Amino acid sequence: MSDRVETLRWRAGRLELIDQRRLPARVEFVACATAQEVARAIRDMVVRGAPAIGCAAAYGIALEAARMKDTTPAVFASGMERAFEVLAAARPTAANLFWALERMRAVLRGGGQIPSTELRTGSGQGSPADTAGRLLEEAQRIVSADIAANRAMGAHGAALLADRARVFTHCNAGALATAGHGTALGVIRSAVAAGKRVSVIVDETRPFLQGARLTAWELQQDGIPVTLITDSMSGHLMSRGEIDAVIVGADRIAANGDVANKIGTYMIAVLARRHGIPFYVAAPLSTLDASLDNGGAIVIEEREASEVRGHAGVEWAPAGVAVRNPVFDVTPAELVTALITEKGVVRAPDRGKIAALLA
Amino acid sequence: MSDRVETLRWRAGRLELIDQRRLPARVEFVACATAQEVARAIRDMVVRGAPAIGCAAAYGIALEAARMKDTTPAVFASGMERAFEVLAAARPTAANLFWALERMRAVLRGGGQIPSTELRTGSGQGSPADTAGRLLEEAQRIVSADIAANRAMGAHGAALLADRARVFTHCNAGALATAGHGTALGVIRSAVAAGKRVSVIVDETRPFLQGARLTAWELQQDGIPVTLITDSMSGHLMSRGEIDAVIVGADRIAANGDVANKIGTYMIAVLARRHGIPFYVAAPLSTLDASLDNGGAIVIEEREASEVRGHAGVEWAPAGVAVRNPVFDVTPAELVTALITEKGVVRAPDRGKIAALLA
Repeated sequence: MSDRVETLRWRAGRLELIDQRRLPARVEFVACATAQEVARAIRDMVVRGAPAIGCAAAYGIALEAARMKDTTPAVFASGMERAFEVLAAARPTAANLFWALERMRAVLRGGGQIPSTELRTGSGQGSPADTAGRLLEEAQRIVSADIAANRAMGAHGAALLADRARVFTHCNAGALATAGHGTALGVIRSAVAAGKRVSVIVDETRPFLQGARLTAWELQQDGIPVTLITDSMSGHLMSRGEIDAVIVGADRIAANGDVANKIGTYMIAVLARRHGIPFYVAAPLSTLDASLDNGGAIVIEEREASEVRGHAGVEWAPAGVAVRNPVFDVTPAELVTALITEKGVVRAPDRGKIAALLA
Repeated sequence: MSDRVETLRWRAGRLELIDQRRLPARVEFVACATAQEVARAIRDMVVRGAPAIGCAAAYGIALEAARMKDTTPAVFASGMERAFEVLAAARPTAANLFWALERMRAVLRGGGQIPSTELRTGSGQGSPADTAGRLLEEAQRIVSADIAANRAMGAHGAALLADRARVFTHCNAGALATAGHGTALGVIRSAVAAGKRVSVIVDETRPFLQGARLTAWELQQDGIPVTLITDSMSGHLMSRGEIDAVIVGADRIAANGDVANKIGTYMIAVLARRHGIPFYVAAPLSTLDASLDNGGAIVIEEREASEVRGHAGVEWAPAGVAVRNPVFDVTPAELVTALITEKGVVRAPDRGKIAALLA
């Protein structure tokens, strides 16, 4: 089902990204030929969603390598270094971006066996052309593995949803946030494929409106019943007994299980706990960041004020009003009923269980 | 300060309402000459905010009486009956609408001393022209009393705010929601007038954007520092220690202290409690509805889907997506730190304290 949505595709040596700023009004693709162009597409939200950002960044490295494959090893090495830097600087919060770049760097280093001093001088194994080929293969493996992880999460998570469950989700953790199938929406898709009559409620997710524009559209494509509300309404629906479960994705998960996800997630988690509604987080292991002790250490990106003042060039706030625009928040692990990963469902995630997952 | 904003004004025998659908882009007034026109202005949100709706409805009755003052008592009586019906049907949740109509009906009945059977036949005291005069005076008393109540609330409530308090508010409970000064924003204005350096954070309040369009604009007019966020961000700011107090208005308060207010209020109250942040409700006694045992009995209006699909004629949601649009929610009394009324501050409001207020 989710194969109807092509978030990213490799065509004639270029990365094509569905333009998520234009959906659902227009289905258009942006083609990228360089790491710089991929970084800009990530920064400008042509592509968003932590796993999709990771996949795009991997292709960004592959593109840059292909572009430079006929240069000398030294020129190639320094060009690749710049590509890693520009991609790493594109957005700060998505763990998968840094995870994917780390995987690509290991291939550049020759499977991690070549000392980094040799990398600097281009003395790693093989010619730039050989390395470029291996980097493209690795990017394609990352993409395939992401889809496989989402399908595994879907299979594990579908068991958590009852027939006729009314599932609330926030933002877009769907095919559009990944290489395909989706994390949170992947669980819903898998439940539907298993014959469960699941319906979805999604909030619009200001300011970028991923819920209204992307999740509602994705689910419509698949014929899964979806109802749109504003970001202020989920608590009311919970209080009226109209939501049976919450599933969201994640942008970064700390070693203790604290979850950074789209701004607003934390409020939903607090309300779900108050109403005894299970709050599930679906995320691949590539979203786990064992280097961060807890959620307080997660960098929260603040984006430009214009996003909050209006939408798509139309401003409704009074001119000159001050704005805050943090785009993620942190949900403490204690509010997470279960973490759904490709390795299985982890109930009441904590430091020990996260470490075991990564072992 | 708040006198700069004219929510409603009586000009040359007509009611002029600032068009709150157009603010802040344009400051325009809509003139109403009949009860029907006032009812439409209330329904279409030219005027909104429970106290302002009450004032507008009172003028609506006065307008209709003036229009019919030269008819026979019987024609006058039946015309007035229709005016009450059309105004009462304009919006269901604001208690002040029904409270103001009740006050106007008492004047129509001749101070409540005339049996309603006599009203039906137009046998109440005085001619239609006399009654029309008394009805206009009553409408003007309602408006003056609303401003006076707001100033009293401001004086009582200002003491609750510390110097340099960062106060969060939702929707618009300002001059634009009342005849002047405002309820929640009235408390803030009075604190500022008393020399406290209060700053305000307001969320945009989708779908009608009262926070972004009205509260931000009102506070800018007064030079009170204001920062705009989306509806999903207040929990994050609370978790980071960036909000010292929450003040909101109310549309209806049940006998046990449960508060119906703009959708989203409940989520904010739950988050404030979690973070130990005081949650204040500022509302005149005319918002209290002793006839309702608790908040579960409050009628929650659902408005049209187009409001959620986009804004001001621009739709960003996919065509045909299902929508829910409840425009109020209920905050249980246990989450209210204090109710600020013109009679004083009621901490931890409950059934007994509400009854005492109304005694």
